[in-house]
Amino acid sequence: MGKPEAAGERTDAHTDPGLDRMLEGLRSGDRGMLARAITLVESDRPADRQAAARLVEACLPPTVSSLRIGVTGVPGVGKSTFIESLGLKLVQSGRRLAVLAVDPSSDISGGSILGDKTRMAGLAADERAFIRPSPARGVLGGVTGRTRETIVLFEAAGHDTVFVETVGVGQAETAAYGVVDCFLLLLLPGAGDELQGMKRGIVERADLLAVNKADGERGAAARETAADYRRALHLLPPSESGWNPPVIACSGLTGEGLDEVWERIGAFAARMREGGHFQARRREQALAWFRAAFREGLQEAVRSRPGMDDALREAEAVVRSGERHPPSVARDLLARWAAAADGHG
Amino acid sequence: MGKPEAAGERTDAHTDPGLDRMLEGLRSGDRGMLARAITLVESDRPADRQAAARLVEACLPPTVSSLRIGVTGVPGVGKSTFIESLGLKLVQSGRRLAVLAVDPSSDISGGSILGDKTRMAGLAADERAFIRPSPARGVLGGVTGRTRETIVLFEAAGHDTVFVETVGVGQAETAAYGVVDCFLLLLLPGAGDELQGMKRGIVERADLLAVNKADGERGAAARETAADYRRALHLLPPSESGWNPPVIACSGLTGEGLDEVWERIGAFAARMREGGHFQARRREQALAWFRAAFREGLQEAVRSRPGMDDALREAEAVVRSGERHPPSVARDLLARWAAAADGHG
Repeated sequence: MGKPEAAGERTDAHTDPGLDRMLEGLRSGDRGMLARAITLVESDRPADRQAAARLVEACLPPTVSSLRIGVTGVPGVGKSTFIESLGLKLVQSGRRLAVLAVDPSSDISGGSILGDKTRMAGLAADERAFIRPSPARGVLGGVTGRTRETIVLFEAAGHDTVFVETVGVGQAETAAYGVVDCFLLLLLPGAGDELQGMKRGIVERADLLAVNKADGERGAAARETAADYRRALHLLPPSESGWNPPVIACSGLTGEGLDEVWERIGAFAARMREGGHFQARRREQALAWFRAAFREGLQEAVRSRPGMDDALREAEAVVRSGERHPPSVARDLLARWAAAADGHG
Repeated sequence: MGKPEAAGERTDAHTDPGLDRMLEGLRSGDRGMLARAITLVESDRPADRQAAARLVEACLPPTVSSLRIGVTGVPGVGKSTFIESLGLKLVQSGRRLAVLAVDPSSDISGGSILGDKTRMAGLAADERAFIRPSPARGVLGGVTGRTRETIVLFEAAGHDTVFVETVGVGQAETAAYGVVDCFLLLLLPGAGDELQGMKRGIVERADLLAVNKADGERGAAARETAADYRRALHLLPPSESGWNPPVIACSGLTGEGLDEVWERIGAFAARMREGGHFQARRREQALAWFRAAFREGLQEAVRSRPGMDDALREAEAVVRSGERHPPSVARDLLARWAAAADGHG
């Protein structure tokens, strides 16, 4: 879109009335404006992408001290009921909640997440909470960025407790892990087989595990499953901070165990803040975001030079064949790119 | 070093007598030449790096059908004894073995790995095996590349069974995971606490687990630990290929259980080959190597432009502060780089 100077006043944030009004609306807690801002952030249109970047930039640095919690588990584990029950307790204790459901697989799973707004009816009706269903897009690379931007908007609107809900299949949970302060894995009583299809590494990454549906006849099974996981976690490497993930049996339906879950989340956050791990994790997440964006931009710039897109594809085919030394192929490609840059291509 | 044309005959592989002789020596099984080739690959001198790349390129595609096995475990778990005992069985059954010990932390651990050659005395004395201790360098990024290059040399010299030994702390085991066909985790009887300091995710990544030192009084404890891990693994997500990592109690000292370990490694390899996962994993590893090399080269090219190294450092500091939107910082930096490229910088 040309150089910043050439673009002139038309793209300057301060002369764009929509942006200023949106920011003012956000800051004053206008829910309709928050919804519109998130829609802007989720848009793929280039002009919207630019406006979204300016809006998010204007929301930084955050003015609330927030806690971002990822909740992951297979479909049917009861994530929505869990978040609604815990969320209602939290808003009643004065916290301002926001929930974002990220589900890149929702095309496949038949839009189960689209029903979340209805299922979290009690929370959705509360002025102190804001529920946002998934954008239901398939672009995995985009999920992390859009989720991060939406979190910035939530916090600018004063929400101090943010839940990011993912199904934990494919790469959605990896995305969630990279944007939250605390990663919570929900499990079913009975244990084990449900993890079929989940990403490897997910159990070792959890900061807290909760066996849900510990109600009625399933109570005993849930407590047994929790004990099994406690034993299993002892056989895995601990986190660098020395935190040992607790395993709690709970019920989103009856509310049993939810106080303990929240207490442990609080203990985790306090421990992380004390040791400096909390801010360090956020800094690392911001750096990872920056580096990924820089890398992507660089690759795009490379690809946009004549012939480079084909050259890259050919190079990868050669590498896949195993016939050549991968770093040598990379070096040849870089030489070709440099020659194209000097006008020799 | 200038453009290929400008460099002329002096850097052409075909007029470099050292390279041709080295390749011939390698192919004919000259052990001294293999040792010299690995030393070349491990060198940091730019001229050596170029020669090493040409040598490795000349060794491709591989002429032997090989199996690459990673062996990881904490210091004291008995990796060397395990590899020597298993290795002696393998050479006696006609396989040609090569062992590379990768230990970027050996500066700290007091060179425990430097003693490997002595400790694997039986294997080292066998003409059908080749033992290479660690280069004991601290450069983590370099470990993966040098390890991969060394494996290519091993295979060019006819070694069909390659062991890569790592201590599994820091990032060495991640490096190993990215270069082997089968990843074996060695554990101690008693279980759990030894994993302190190991990388998270390592247990979920193992293709096979072996509880070592199942000899004498420790036999019962080792079998109990193996049973504990079998139960724990049931609570972790399985691999995409559907392979369930077996857990075997064994002893590198008495040789007990080693036949079963080798049988299971064979079953794993057969299963992976059948499903196409074996070649797919190697192709993915080669692609990852290529992409990392291309990315590094690109970043170096960016950094070499006037002012860009400082600009990148400043940008990262701003991102760490949390005051700006990371993708916007990346965009600004890319614009600055583009301007510098056009000669406006």
